[in-house]
Amino acid sequence: MREAADRLGFVANAAARSLHSGRTYTVGMITTDSIGRFSIPLLIGAEGALGAGQVSVFLCDARDDPIREQYYLRTLLSRNVDGIIVTGRRTQARAPIAAGLHVPVVYAFISSADPHDCSVVPDEADGARRAVRHLLATGRRRIAHVTGPEHHHSATVRAAATEQTLRAEGLDLATPVLFGQWSEAWGRQAAGVLLAAGADVDAVFCGSDQIARGVAEGLREAGRAIPGDVALVGFDNWDIMVEGCRPALTSIDMDLEGIGRSAAELLLAAINGDPVRGRRALPCRLVPRASTAAG
Amino acid sequence: MREAADRLGFVANAAARSLHSGRTYTVGMITTDSIGRFSIPLLIGAEGALGAGQVSVFLCDARDDPIREQYYLRTLLSRNVDGIIVTGRRTQARAPIAAGLHVPVVYAFISSADPHDCSVVPDEADGARRAVRHLLATGRRRIAHVTGPEHHHSATVRAAATEQTLRAEGLDLATPVLFGQWSEAWGRQAAGVLLAAGADVDAVFCGSDQIARGVAEGLREAGRAIPGDVALVGFDNWDIMVEGCRPALTSIDMDLEGIGRSAAELLLAAINGDPVRGRRALPCRLVPRASTAAG
Repeated sequence: MREAADRLGFVANAAARSLHSGRTYTVGMITTDSIGRFSIPLLIGAEGALGAGQVSVFLCDARDDPIREQYYLRTLLSRNVDGIIVTGRRTQARAPIAAGLHVPVVYAFISSADPHDCSVVPDEADGARRAVRHLLATGRRRIAHVTGPEHHHSATVRAAATEQTLRAEGLDLATPVLFGQWSEAWGRQAAGVLLAAGADVDAVFCGSDQIARGVAEGLREAGRAIPGDVALVGFDNWDIMVEGCRPALTSIDMDLEGIGRSAAELLLAAINGDPVRGRRALPCRLVPRASTAAG
Repeated sequence: MREAADRLGFVANAAARSLHSGRTYTVGMITTDSIGRFSIPLLIGAEGALGAGQVSVFLCDARDDPIREQYYLRTLLSRNVDGIIVTGRRTQARAPIAAGLHVPVVYAFISSADPHDCSVVPDEADGARRAVRHLLATGRRRIAHVTGPEHHHSATVRAAATEQTLRAEGLDLATPVLFGQWSEAWGRQAAGVLLAAGADVDAVFCGSDQIARGVAEGLREAGRAIPGDVALVGFDNWDIMVEGCRPALTSIDMDLEGIGRSAAELLLAAINGDPVRGRRALPCRLVPRASTAAG
């Protein structure tokens, strides 16, 4: 292997470098739930920032299993990682992964319930505000909000920000928030509910792109034109959903890759003796498409 | 950190274990293109098999960049990994990642053009055969095939197996293979092409779930009942597509997680001095749903 490494022109020896600095130039990344749609961009962002700093990433997938999570934590500690990033698909605060660790930990997308821990999360309320302001700016006034389950943190945060933003303009939602599921099927069903209620909405802001796609289908099949009759905004800016939607869906992007990158940069700073404490909420971005285009 | 590790009940010291065995109990996983929908299940499968063997995974995302790929390879070699898994989203054979490496390498999903290298790939022709046989078994005879670009390896392999399977039953495709894009938009367009051609098909086998979803939409909006008039089979068994499709889509599952697991097991065997050479193609699985249900 030495020979192959030489032929590839590799000079520095990682083990020697580690002896010299006391660092292993490795970082652990634990996804508390399964690796999936939300953790990939986080991972890509973190991996990019760490790779540029010549730090390698150990990936650990705890699959919603606390025992597996603690097993991985011990494995990472026994490997003398320089730091740990904890990610997961829920934005709700979670218990710290362990107390009294002597390596820095940064939480990405999820946040630690300990306010002294370093967490980087999306500002979901900011995302909802951007969606509502965009609809208001394009002349919509009778706005409905269709979203996920009422017990889900993201659904309640986005719904509350939606109502507050409307109230600040002297408006109410056209109907009470429609809480349901994070699915297209619920979106289709919710379109039926809105039509049956005779709410005469001119815009629907949805808590996810999947829901929005279902709403689009339901409205179109009932003969409503999008955006002519009803403008539509989703949440997530998930490529296959916003492009598969007819018409293409305006959506809110949480910049997951930026969150991953930011978490990695804060971890590298902490490893270098410059830790930042507390929760950082990064702004979202509105990506306008045909579903809210002007007449 | 030692203190924390002790408190967590961790006994073995990875560095000490490494000195003893000459192994680092780490494996590198290089995704040649970006981490995404296809690499996640591969990664989960591999990570599961390796984690159970107490081996940690270094994740490297080469992002379609050969320079980045060689950089990561050197990094992994300098870290004295015990072996390397190379993955990517294309099933077409690729050039070996490097010649003369003194650590084992296994290719997963993608395969190495060197027949002596160890590669684990899905048997896509087997998948196409299962789809066609399922349609024949449910009484369909006028079958069309709508798929991705003609220059794409997966599209041509699946199309060839589709035609061969029909011919073995004395049948031809109802229309020549419709090559296009891996998108819903192409599926909708292809539905129009089929209807305009008056091909009177009673089944469409699609090269991807996204295409199938577009075909379903196009046919439904033209008043054709699925599966009453036309049965539909997709490829990938991608949860959000097969569930979002109306009706729910019968599809072919390549068992990506199984491919990742198998690749990891073969890598562990090679590390333990028992290497397997050559290309292994794992069978696919048909997952029947409403789109091919009997009347």
